[in-house]
Amino acid sequence: MAPDRRTNHPRPQRHRRRDREVVEAAERVFYERGYSGASVQDVADELGILKGSLYHYIDTKEDLLFRLLEEVHEDVQVIISEVAARDDLDAIGRIALYVRRTVEYNVQHLPRISIYYHDVQRLTEARRAAIFSRRKEHESFLTELITEAQRAGQADPAIDAGIVTNCIFGTAIWVYRWYRPDGKSAPVDLPDLCARFVLSGVVGPAASLTSVQSTNRLV
Amino acid sequence: MAPDRRTNHPRPQRHRRRDREVVEAAERVFYERGYSGASVQDVADELGILKGSLYHYIDTKEDLLFRLLEEVHEDVQVIISEVAARDDLDAIGRIALYVRRTVEYNVQHLPRISIYYHDVQRLTEARRAAIFSRRKEHESFLTELITEAQRAGQADPAIDAGIVTNCIFGTAIWVYRWYRPDGKSAPVDLPDLCARFVLSGVVGPAASLTSVQSTNRLV
Repeated sequence: MAPDRRTNHPRPQRHRRRDREVVEAAERVFYERGYSGASVQDVADELGILKGSLYHYIDTKEDLLFRLLEEVHEDVQVIISEVAARDDLDAIGRIALYVRRTVEYNVQHLPRISIYYHDVQRLTEARRAAIFSRRKEHESFLTELITEAQRAGQADPAIDAGIVTNCIFGTAIWVYRWYRPDGKSAPVDLPDLCARFVLSGVVGPAASLTSVQSTNRLV
Repeated sequence: MAPDRRTNHPRPQRHRRRDREVVEAAERVFYERGYSGASVQDVADELGILKGSLYHYIDTKEDLLFRLLEEVHEDVQVIISEVAARDDLDAIGRIALYVRRTVEYNVQHLPRISIYYHDVQRLTEARRAAIFSRRKEHESFLTELITEAQRAGQADPAIDAGIVTNCIFGTAIWVYRWYRPDGKSAPVDLPDLCARFVLSGVVGPAASLTSVQSTNRLV
């Protein structure tokens, strides 16, 4: 960790910055060596500090994984709040925005998304339950939007909103398995392309052409 | 492994059956304990044989993982051959059949799909390359079908067939993360629901209503 030269800075904010540096170092180490192959010593080395100093911030390696996954959910919460606040958009427009923002986030945070889905099972039970409960909230938010679109006659009434939520998660999350920013499969408009694919699936073949056209404008 | 009482059975077939028993035991053990946490001894115990006997079939634990992942690709190849042989279906119909069969397979083989995506990176380089090359063939098959549907005016011309291939993989593969056969989220018609979602995404909002209706019939 770089020494903090701004000693006059209010303590809580300085602490938050250090916490972030610790989590970011853990992210790099877990991504490169794998969570099970990485040690607290590796993270201390990445920060350029002694292992003993790192233990001022954490008690176990699992603390680092838990904080990283909590951060993902805090970031997801920012997206959800932004989408929920967009009163100017109808449910379909909000689903499109949600997918775009989520894919953008996943593309920009491939290492932590990769660690999330590879290692969430390694958390001890209480912490795994805490993470799953946040994921459940996230899921409910999207299922609610789909149900709202169905009630408004904008989404295929034949779809099961819960299943489609998982289909959308699949499309948006799977990005971390195949997208590489330096590869030939790196279109700048990936978030839009995913949103277009998902929205057609939500609107479905049964929807009126009017809904489909208004969808088109929003994506 | 159960002793083979049919000693008059032709040797190659008996060997294939034993190979399958070995791979299936490895699948159960890797799924329960995780590949990195499991040992060859655990697999031998699962089979009820001595570790030395298991070493007649394999040289390393990695051999078991590699054979399991090869089996997944052999099974996928059966699906691809079935879909390719359906001359009576147009490209859209074959995409629908492909998605249904793939989701059915994934639902019926949750443990091996889970091991595949969790541990494929643990293969040594040459074997990982062999598996990726088979995956690449699989990907090309689907991308070709989407391109064919676009040429026939049945699929959204604005979509990128390669990206949509990955969106479809996301939808079909993600099932292993959320679907539990004993859970409340276990609809019997999941393969059809996923095919419906995917097909709308492929046909897209720009397609003519005629294509959309013919799609509807096929799903």
